[in-house]
Amino acid sequence: MKRINMAVLAGDGVGPEVMRQTLRVLTTVAPDVTHESGLIGGAAWAEHNDHFPKATRELIDRSDAVLFGSVGGPVDQSHLPQWHGCEVNSILALRQYLNLSVNHRPARIFPALRNLSPLKNTRLEGCDEVLILRELSGDIYFGEKRTFESDAGLIAEDVATYTTNQIRHLAHEAFRTAAQRKAQLVSVDKANVLETSRLWRQIFTQVASQYPSVELTHMLVDNCAMQLIINPAQFDVIATGNLFGDILSDAASALPGSLGMMPSASFNADGFGLYEPSGGSAPQLQGKDVANPMAQLLSLALLLRHSLQRNEAASAIEHAIEQTLDAGIRTADICLTGEQAIGTRAFTDEVIAR
Amino acid sequence: MKRINMAVLAGDGVGPEVMRQTLRVLTTVAPDVTHESGLIGGAAWAEHNDHFPKATRELIDRSDAVLFGSVGGPVDQSHLPQWHGCEVNSILALRQYLNLSVNHRPARIFPALRNLSPLKNTRLEGCDEVLILRELSGDIYFGEKRTFESDAGLIAEDVATYTTNQIRHLAHEAFRTAAQRKAQLVSVDKANVLETSRLWRQIFTQVASQYPSVELTHMLVDNCAMQLIINPAQFDVIATGNLFGDILSDAASALPGSLGMMPSASFNADGFGLYEPSGGSAPQLQGKDVANPMAQLLSLALLLRHSLQRNEAASAIEHAIEQTLDAGIRTADICLTGEQAIGTRAFTDEVIAR
Ligand SMILES: CC(C)[C@H](C(=O)O)[C@@H](O)C(=O)O
Ligand SMILES: CC(C)[C@H](C(=O)O)[C@@H](O)C(=O)O
Repeated sequence: MKRINMAVLAGDGVGPEVMRQTLRVLTTVAPDVTHESGLIGGAAWAEHNDHFPKATRELIDRSDAVLFGSVGGPVDQSHLPQWHGCEVNSILALRQYLNLSVNHRPARIFPALRNLSPLKNTRLEGCDEVLILRELSGDIYFGEKRTFESDAGLIAEDVATYTTNQIRHLAHEAFRTAAQRKAQLVSVDKANVLETSRLWRQIFTQVASQYPSVELTHMLVDNCAMQLIINPAQFDVIATGNLFGDILSDAASALPGSLGMMPSASFNADGFGLYEPSGGSAPQLQGKDVANPMAQLLSLALLLRHSLQRNEAASAIEHAIEQTLDAGIRTADICLTGEQAIGTRAFTDEVIAR
Repeated sequence: MKRINMAVLAGDGVGPEVMRQTLRVLTTVAPDVTHESGLIGGAAWAEHNDHFPKATRELIDRSDAVLFGSVGGPVDQSHLPQWHGCEVNSILALRQYLNLSVNHRPARIFPALRNLSPLKNTRLEGCDEVLILRELSGDIYFGEKRTFESDAGLIAEDVATYTTNQIRHLAHEAFRTAAQRKAQLVSVDKANVLETSRLWRQIFTQVASQYPSVELTHMLVDNCAMQLIINPAQFDVIATGNLFGDILSDAASALPGSLGMMPSASFNADGFGLYEPSGGSAPQLQGKDVANPMAQLLSLALLLRHSLQRNEAASAIEHAIEQTLDAGIRTADICLTGEQAIGTRAFTDEVIAR
């Protein structure tokens, strides 16, 4: 089978319609990038009774990178086999299949959209982007899980684990990333309670000595959740474990005002990358042409830059989006009262025109 | 030994100075309430080489309730034996000693202090108080912990557990509490990934059938962290596990603008209560007479109401604080630029005068 640049897994909900628009942008900025679509999530179940079918694995195996949409069904249908365990069987299985270990989640505050932030604008002074680096292969996500009978009724158990190697890998990535930015790294854990966090803190402190130019601070996760709201400008790069990263990156995504703008990039130790919007499949918006395509477009830009070394094409997308926003063009999720919203397709037309 | 109404454990940092002022207020509103002070945390270590000495346990055993201050030392001294493991050995040990299982953490937005919130005031429309009910006896806090050698280097492990009984107990408390308020309960978990969360969701769904007047919603913890910032007014009562409760209650405490105003109350199955500010010991403020006494005063009010059935005295404190705030009187943490701050003692004088 011939190798291709990009496996396209649109998934469920608004995934397919947003992906369709994203591929139009790709054709505009980098028509030579080869790509092929595969099924994942509920969409894959509908055809193969499998959330992550073999054909999709094979497609990924011969790709240079994966552009992922979103998976999951409507809440009121979660009992149906199509949706039962859908996220775990598709996106979590995919992360395991690819050994993805580092997840970059940038929460960027677009100047044109400051008004959209739930925070008072004075609090955003000096805050352009908070980048969360989330460890993606360990913690309570992939440890042993069980539920068993006891005298006291059922007991449920989840085991959180971290190995030195997992933490060290993330730490090096975090220090390297911080060194290229403001040289400030905040490592977040719960070392006053957890063994995994104490090991985390110990390894980060060790690795720090190899990056003398970067200032490392340790912060407890509860405090960080508060600080992100009270004073987000203190953060540039935050490095944290899988579970805390899940929670904190969603909290950080509130700062720009809409999850619909947040791309993310995940890498394994060989540098293979999967790129996806941080938001979910938003089934309630499906088919209405109202979803914000920005997160998917920015994920494509990250893919072009990091996996295909197509810096120019990536920047072209990013600049076109900024100019579209500067021109006051908005999808519904980023509209203030009085502003007029346009649809997914029309917004993409405006981006392409730029 | 004679029984007393209240064991007073001031602890470290600003704990003692704030507690001193709080006891002056007690003398004003309920001079007949008997109380006795005991040592805990670093202060106890300094005298007994023990963060939670026997004398303190005995004091608690003959009290009707505990008024707790705060524990913990300066970050740059955390390697000293006085501070090493201080929080775990004092406040966590105390929670275990008393079998505390339900923690009430109300984040109240005082009308006079709306300007203080990091959130735009339009976002706070309709949001007076978010009450977080945190399960306090289970989860990853008290499960097995270990670090061991393996071929891949060190591995650290923390086990999260929940029993049916632990969850059911919290659930009943949550539904009862919600029924007395807006009859809206949001249960927060990570059921798409964790066994403990799936059991949690199952029990909450079962218990819900006994409280038909209360509307139960399930929400994932990552989404909740975002929703608390984007749209806090949707919440009245949130019920969640020990770890998520730790993180979300700190996030919620950002809404009023300062952790210095948040009291909390914890109960065991027999209704015995411990009352403490949600904030920490703030060693950097120690001895400066600048700390906000509100969280401690409001904790005392909760104690008077719930453990000693002294509703009038409790309300007297709460109203006096509101009037003090309405009069524009502020400690440093709740001052806007241009406003003048007064100290811990002077603020308390103003509360007492009212
Ligand atoms: C869908 C879910 C399993 C996933 C996670 O928890 O990692 C999602 O919340 C995310 O942040 O990518
Ligand atoms: C001090 C620490 C162990 C404690 C906790 O995590 O419960 C604190 O953060 C709290 O919220 O009361």
